[in-house]
Amino acid sequence: MTTRQVLDHGFITLEDAAMAQDANVVRAARICYQSESDQGTRDAALIRRLMRSGHMTPFEHAVMRWHVKCPLFVARQWLRHRMASYNEKSLRYCIAEPEWYMPAGKTFIQQMAYNAGIRQAFKAYDLLICEGWPPEQARGVLPMSVYTEFVWTVNASSLMNWLKQRLAKGAQWEHQQYAEAALELWTDAMPVTALAFVEKLGAYE
Amino acid sequence: MTTRQVLDHGFITLEDAAMAQDANVVRAARICYQSESDQGTRDAALIRRLMRSGHMTPFEHAVMRWHVKCPLFVARQWLRHRMASYNEKSLRYCIAEPEWYMPAGKTFIQQMAYNAGIRQAFKAYDLLICEGWPPEQARGVLPMSVYTEFVWTVNASSLMNWLKQRLAKGAQWEHQQYAEAALELWTDAMPVTALAFVEKLGAYE
Amino acid sequence: MTTRQVLDHGFITLEDAAMAQDANVVRAARICYQSESDQGTRDAALIRRLMRSGHMTPFEHAVMRWHVKCPLFVARQWLRHRMASYNEKSLRYCIAEPEWYMPAGKTFIQQMAYNAGIRQAFKAYDLLICEGWPPEQARGVLPMSVYTEFVWTVNASSLMNWLKQRLAKGAQWEHQQYAEAALELWTDAMPVTALAFVEKLGAYE
Amino acid sequence: MTTRQVLDHGFITLEDAAMAQDANVVRAARICYQSESDQGTRDAALIRRLMRSGHMTPFEHAVMRWHVKCPLFVARQWLRHRMASYNEKSLRYCIAEPEWYMPAGKTFIQQMAYNAGIRQAFKAYDLLICEGWPPEQARGVLPMSVYTEFVWTVNASSLMNWLKQRLAKGAQWEHQQYAEAALELWTDAMPVTALAFVEKLGAYE
Repeated sequence: MTTRQVLDHGFITLEDAAMAQDANVVRAARICYQSESDQGTRDAALIRRLMRSGHMTPFEHAVMRWHVKCPLFVARQWLRHRMASYNEKSLRYCIAEPEWYMPAGKTFIQQMAYNAGIRQAFKAYDLLICEGWPPEQARGVLPMSVYTEFVWTVNASSLMNWLKQRLAKGAQWEHQQYAEAALELWTDAMPVTALAFVEKLGAYE
Repeated sequence: MTTRQVLDHGFITLEDAAMAQDANVVRAARICYQSESDQGTRDAALIRRLMRSGHMTPFEHAVMRWHVKCPLFVARQWLRHRMASYNEKSLRYCIAEPEWYMPAGKTFIQQMAYNAGIRQAFKAYDLLICEGWPPEQARGVLPMSVYTEFVWTVNASSLMNWLKQRLAKGAQWEHQQYAEAALELWTDAMPVTALAFVEKLGAYE
Repeated sequence: MTTRQVLDHGFITLEDAAMAQDANVVRAARICYQSESDQGTRDAALIRRLMRSGHMTPFEHAVMRWHVKCPLFVARQWLRHRMASYNEKSLRYCIAEPEWYMPAGKTFIQQMAYNAGIRQAFKAYDLLICEGWPPEQARGVLPMSVYTEFVWTVNASSLMNWLKQRLAKGAQWEHQQYAEAALELWTDAMPVTALAFVEKLGAYE
Repeated sequence: MTTRQVLDHGFITLEDAAMAQDANVVRAARICYQSESDQGTRDAALIRRLMRSGHMTPFEHAVMRWHVKCPLFVARQWLRHRMASYNEKSLRYCIAEPEWYMPAGKTFIQQMAYNAGIRQAFKAYDLLICEGWPPEQARGVLPMSVYTEFVWTVNASSLMNWLKQRLAKGAQWEHQQYAEAALELWTDAMPVTALAFVEKLGAYE
């Protein structure tokens, strides 16, 4: 399975991993030295050496596509990572569905207040759509907790930058949940690279 | 004046134009040919020739910094332009102010519904902040019409890509207002380049 | 066959086209509108529409890896295209082989002069290597016509930028040969996108 | 003085530092928190904190333009750094001057061999130019040690990536000389940032 449920209504799917293989990294690295792959321990040692020395360009040749559903305020942070390609569901053209993220572990009263504010916003949204407002203007009343969806094509080097930043202690908890799920799925696809990455991450802490 | 008011509470300011000069483009282009600037008609002809032929790299050497205040749903589109640098006011750390964008030219009833939905959301926000929620979670109830602020450092080539896309007919009206204001301010700073750009834009239509 | 011989000793190979499919473009475009692929004429129409309107981000989700062998002076231009990933054979670590590009269609005398100059350079190179110079310094005598090799991972949007620039009339003839071969190989992998691209290119001329 | 001589015939000049100031970094960072600059010790502490925590985006708002003259094999490495803008003297259009880099500290015999190989190449080049070859083809005989020139517009974040990589032990000695000169010139322009960078660099070793 290449999908993980995240938060109350979200998910992350590793949709296309055809070019996300440790072998792609080795291929790119070995051309520098005109050396041959052994598809075994020497390749693994090469990957670890690249990672430790910060020689990251070979990791750019491993590429994958993800499908993500997450709250809009998480997507806002996510799409700031520029070395990647995104296409997102557009609320200029699509009508928003009444589905939003509700943080867990809150009191009943707090949940009431949170949901009441949002339900009121969706009522206003529906009314304005009925009145003929273009969705791109009516969305102005919608909350930042609505779910959005996007496809994300990213290479392993850029993925690791995102992981490093979003797994860090200071990162927003909701975003961390996506990073942890992505790390798990990515480890299945590129086990040698992912292990070397986790080791390096540990060395920094 | 290097500021333009945009929409009901927004603005765009050309905050630093020290490196935003036609001369920077000429400097970069002339090194290719090892030729000299004449600070006059031959330089202007060179800029027009670069623009028409789509030889855009010299325009990357003219750089400027903007300060923008705009609705969050406009910022979401804006920050997708990747060949630029952004730092934005963070609602993870700052408490949001009760200020939002209201589209003009609507009926009284529609305005009531729009504003009522948003006021309800801000009430919920205030309550959750008082209850001790971290701002980064409480913002989930806030609407996409709240204003945000960011600084934007961009080179002239990337600025023109943004202008072209955001001045186009299909662009969201609210975003166009910023693009038109930016074009006006930028024309003061780089008149030869801006004129050549507008001519080219016209040729495409 | 996914390889084309180019110039006297070069080639270009489409080494990995697993993510280079028209379907990847459609996948990314359809998420905006939450619409479904029909794997047929409507998908093809969508691709043509994206191309004509200059809405290029969906093309970034089609990615491919090439293996290129070309003269160093061609590689110098090629690697200037920044929206892509490269790893190149390194003459800091590898010993250069005595193989270089010789332009065709020249007189016998001219060919003599050209080759004599280069042979002299290789003699000096061999001597300096024997004397214990590090390859990274000895390469200073080598000519720009030596062949180099690199792997190039690039998305379809960035590939088209390269094609457009390198197929243009003003482009260096040697570089054009690679662009023509690449266009041919790419057309096999992504026929709908490639056709739409060629139509658009024609419309500009 | 903002120029440093490097190697036997090269130089590096900090040509435009109008936007290369510590204050630009502070400006960008403070918008996140909506806090005010004190142009003093608190700003300096902020810069050091950003550097240590790896929060690098504010450094992108400090931008500078360099003019570089260096051997072609150094330029080949330099222009691989993609987060920057380059325009280079073109040997497609300009006739190359007989000037090249000669490594110091070699024996007389070695120098003879090196220079003889290169002089022979320049003789062939001159002959082919006289015979009417286009410079873009004739340059095929020229050695990688010829000097080239380029203008380089780069932000402080990207400059630091380059410095880190090119000041490292494994970097080619010739490239290091440029990095050391650049660090010195940059320290004059952005003393607080440069000091924080050097401290961090030291912490990694």
